[in-house]
Amino acid sequence: MRARQFFITTLKEAPADAEIVSHKLMMRAGLIRKLSAGIYNYMPMGLRVIRKVENIIREEMNRAGAVELVMPLVQPAELWQETGRWDKMGPEMLRLKDRHERDFAMQPTSEEVVTDIARQELKSYRALPKNLYQIQTKFRDERRPRFGIMRGREFLMKDAYSFDRDVEAAGKSYENMYAAYRKIFDRLGLTYRAVAADTGAIGGDRSHEFQVIAETGEDAIVYCPQSDYAANIELAEALPLLAERAAPTQALNKVPTPGKSTCADVAALLGTSLANTVKSLVLATDEVDETGAIVKSTVWLLLVRGDHDLNEVKAGKVEGLKDGFRFATEAEIVEHFGCKPGYLGPVGLKKPVKIVADRTVALMSDFITGANEVDFHIAGVNWSRDLPEPDVVADIRNVVEGDASPDGKGTLAIQRGIEVGHVFYLGTKYSKAMNATFLDEDGKPKHFEMGCYGIGVTRILGAAIEQNHDARGIIWPDSIAPFTVAICPIGYDRAEDVKVAADALYAELTAAGIDVILDDRGERPGAMFADWELIGVPHRVVLSDRGLKEGQAEYQGRRDAEATKVAVTELAAFVKARVGS
Amino acid sequence: MRARQFFITTLKEAPADAEIVSHKLMMRAGLIRKLSAGIYNYMPMGLRVIRKVENIIREEMNRAGAVELVMPLVQPAELWQETGRWDKMGPEMLRLKDRHERDFAMQPTSEEVVTDIARQELKSYRALPKNLYQIQTKFRDERRPRFGIMRGREFLMKDAYSFDRDVEAAGKSYENMYAAYRKIFDRLGLTYRAVAADTGAIGGDRSHEFQVIAETGEDAIVYCPQSDYAANIELAEALPLLAERAAPTQALNKVPTPGKSTCADVAALLGTSLANTVKSLVLATDEVDETGAIVKSTVWLLLVRGDHDLNEVKAGKVEGLKDGFRFATEAEIVEHFGCKPGYLGPVGLKKPVKIVADRTVALMSDFITGANEVDFHIAGVNWSRDLPEPDVVADIRNVVEGDASPDGKGTLAIQRGIEVGHVFYLGTKYSKAMNATFLDEDGKPKHFEMGCYGIGVTRILGAAIEQNHDARGIIWPDSIAPFTVAICPIGYDRAEDVKVAADALYAELTAAGIDVILDDRGERPGAMFADWELIGVPHRVVLSDRGLKEGQAEYQGRRDAEATKVAVTELAAFVKARVGS
Repeated sequence: MRARQFFITTLKEAPADAEIVSHKLMMRAGLIRKLSAGIYNYMPMGLRVIRKVENIIREEMNRAGAVELVMPLVQPAELWQETGRWDKMGPEMLRLKDRHERDFAMQPTSEEVVTDIARQELKSYRALPKNLYQIQTKFRDERRPRFGIMRGREFLMKDAYSFDRDVEAAGKSYENMYAAYRKIFDRLGLTYRAVAADTGAIGGDRSHEFQVIAETGEDAIVYCPQSDYAANIELAEALPLLAERAAPTQALNKVPTPGKSTCADVAALLGTSLANTVKSLVLATDEVDETGAIVKSTVWLLLVRGDHDLNEVKAGKVEGLKDGFRFATEAEIVEHFGCKPGYLGPVGLKKPVKIVADRTVALMSDFITGANEVDFHIAGVNWSRDLPEPDVVADIRNVVEGDASPDGKGTLAIQRGIEVGHVFYLGTKYSKAMNATFLDEDGKPKHFEMGCYGIGVTRILGAAIEQNHDARGIIWPDSIAPFTVAICPIGYDRAEDVKVAADALYAELTAAGIDVILDDRGERPGAMFADWELIGVPHRVVLSDRGLKEGQAEYQGRRDAEATKVAVTELAAFVKARVGS
Repeated sequence: MRARQFFITTLKEAPADAEIVSHKLMMRAGLIRKLSAGIYNYMPMGLRVIRKVENIIREEMNRAGAVELVMPLVQPAELWQETGRWDKMGPEMLRLKDRHERDFAMQPTSEEVVTDIARQELKSYRALPKNLYQIQTKFRDERRPRFGIMRGREFLMKDAYSFDRDVEAAGKSYENMYAAYRKIFDRLGLTYRAVAADTGAIGGDRSHEFQVIAETGEDAIVYCPQSDYAANIELAEALPLLAERAAPTQALNKVPTPGKSTCADVAALLGTSLANTVKSLVLATDEVDETGAIVKSTVWLLLVRGDHDLNEVKAGKVEGLKDGFRFATEAEIVEHFGCKPGYLGPVGLKKPVKIVADRTVALMSDFITGANEVDFHIAGVNWSRDLPEPDVVADIRNVVEGDASPDGKGTLAIQRGIEVGHVFYLGTKYSKAMNATFLDEDGKPKHFEMGCYGIGVTRILGAAIEQNHDARGIIWPDSIAPFTVAICPIGYDRAEDVKVAADALYAELTAAGIDVILDDRGERPGAMFADWELIGVPHRVVLSDRGLKEGQAEYQGRRDAEATKVAVTELAAFVKARVGS
């Protein structure tokens, strides 16, 4: 490609609404242009990257035996009503009416449509297993779209759906996709982790997120450097930090802690470790009648150590909290604890509450909690002696760096990540809701065992940039760079030898199948170099009149600190070797 | 590709709502599946064809110097309001509101968005010419979607937009696209014509439709077999069929024609040629005040020869009819002619009307028209003698087969066609409405000269099938067939020599870059052959145990009446030669 023919529009400054580096650099490099909040034009430079990402995904999905199709963007409400998601999905699902006032949704995902296809087309066990995928535009009407195309409203996603005869076969389909995803993210040239993730209401252990490692990532991912354990923070199991409960050594002791309502402040005031304090969190659950009116509420006290954080996903797995919970109101707290939040604890309750202790808290002794009296805490608290044993002991906290790995093979570390892929075992959730069956070998209809597998295509661009950039701009992995090599001739329009050498190199590299851009715009060298560094082309060759007189050109990899002089006679071979072609 | 891994779902019968052959065959071959009226899943078999069509278009667009981008499906109302099309576009444009109640449209086309990009990004004449294109989903909420994906609501279109400095440069861009379209349709393997088309309000002569020739086509296209003249029927110029007006030879003669209200019936009754009769069509135009209330209506009488049809597009170019017309009401007709429709004519009017005569009618003498009295006509009518010369003489009829070609090089023929592409010079219509300017060499802002260039990607599938099918199914051109070669082994699962030979041929053809499907489903031969004939794979190889024992296989092209025996040793070379690989 020649630059004059192409479309290059770099900006000196990113627009004010670009908060994170990938958004800023995508705007400055002219990869995308905003049309409306969360809705972007994919400009020619950005589209080249998208197509390369798409092609890697497509090749590996095909290699894994998946079959590509395309399901419509505008989908009739009826299918969404069959699974109940027409009502359950919030305003993220964009609903619309056609000219005949019929209801439709813009697809945020396609479980309903693909299950409808399966129940019509996959009639026999002989047609299974089958994995259908599409690379198709999605729309999710986010309340606050941000981060450019990392969390846009209109975006591109690869979504795949597997259909199997039974749970065992579905497990194989899952493993097959997991392996394909590893190949995809390896080929994309990104540093990532596949982490176990929560399966929510589906249950089972078959859910993995593919997280691109980046300091700016929104997700905390937990891994064990000594083993292959990796999970997202919602799922990662926190083992108790104490082997057993020590015997009490202190008497119960109410201490004044004026104005100190956090565990950290209290520990500092009392000159003790934060690990001796216990944090109180008050939740509530409601029972409702058929009309939806609340007939009874229950208040819960959840206890985690002062240096730990409550994990709401884990709390949601506690018996009694599974059907949903909320934080208690101040009125409910005062009613049960006789005190406003900040000085709460499990000792001396005004009305009984259900107590859930984290595994570690259940093994603590001589600990410090709120006294249920403003400006007072109690030290020397001990289970059994000062209060009953907890109603429930459970893992309800986030792991922290240094915790023992649940696989017993080392200690945990935490990184930040950006979720770009997800493999998920669905079971018969959708096939039962839509009565999607096939005839099994025994002649009986059975519900498909399903899995779903997503990759955020446009999101990968943002994640790749968050992971790979410097002060000058983007640093694309070779496999998804908009161009692999930029040829920068200085004085292309005036120095004949420069033009001849640049054209020859361009022709030779292009013939070798390398994706080259020849910058024939006639920009000054500084502006030209800045553009290609901002855009992030991984290999650059500079040809100048002066260099050519000495028979030399300059090569510089995007991560190289300095340029390398290369004899013009060796140039094409040198560049080919660098790009691994 | 192996058939078991792929997704093949053929049907014996097409669904009842499939009216035309392409729709029936696409459904039966499993290329598409209906999700909702005019909204289809592109099934794996159909998607392969779509991708091949896309790739040919993309390659030729890139070769022509156009640059690909993608513009969002969901576009803000504000841009459409700038050009006034938010109000002008009918219910075909699907409008929707996001969660914040802001107005958006699903793109039916993208002139507004691309012009917005140009005014922001193309600031200097040095950036011109530029041609931006996308291959992107479109949505048009047709009142009565039909013909499968030939006239669907959600469909795939390539739309390109050129930006130029001046009219001359825009003409070059137009010619460039015209040439690219010829290459595209040549490579698609379709028989087509590029025909001149009406430019509507834009004016000028720069509009061509690319029509795939098919008897079932909706459009009538006119061409001259003796020259390169071709136009759609709306535009094709009808020359007068008479060189000059002959002197009157008959007296005016009112004749009873009871119950004969058509020219054909009257000519038959009177034993004369239809070419001696004149047909009367009554139109009306309205003048309105600022409130839209009609302040004055004018009635027009349009006269074409009895064997000709009025061309409404041409009528709309007559001075006085340019701003829109309607057919007159019966009350208006009775008021002006003193008679109900069926026996109208230009002689003996009750109130004056504007008379527009077709060029041929203006040169007729001794002709027959209605007498403005039920059950009576008048013969021997002559201009000047019996009625004043017409107010306007113009080309207002459709050409008919055998008319002289407007280029003077022969006579016209008429074919049916399906419009699959359109190149159109837009001028400054959009750039002025949106004030999209660039700085020209003289330092002054100028409006872009624009062109737009569409190809209906999914429509091409339907058009190709309408043109290429037989009783057994589709006959794809090689370049867009879902698979180029089908290998049909008889007894793949039981005859080892068949399996070995089939696998070897599959490997060798695949290695040669040929798109092969190996039918390993174990279907009976009849069912297997019927499937591939229905799906329309252009080349088929049959391998059987019996044949192999004689060292032979069978090759059959999809259009061949019989199979050809080929020695197994020559088979791969033979097939490669047939597919031109």
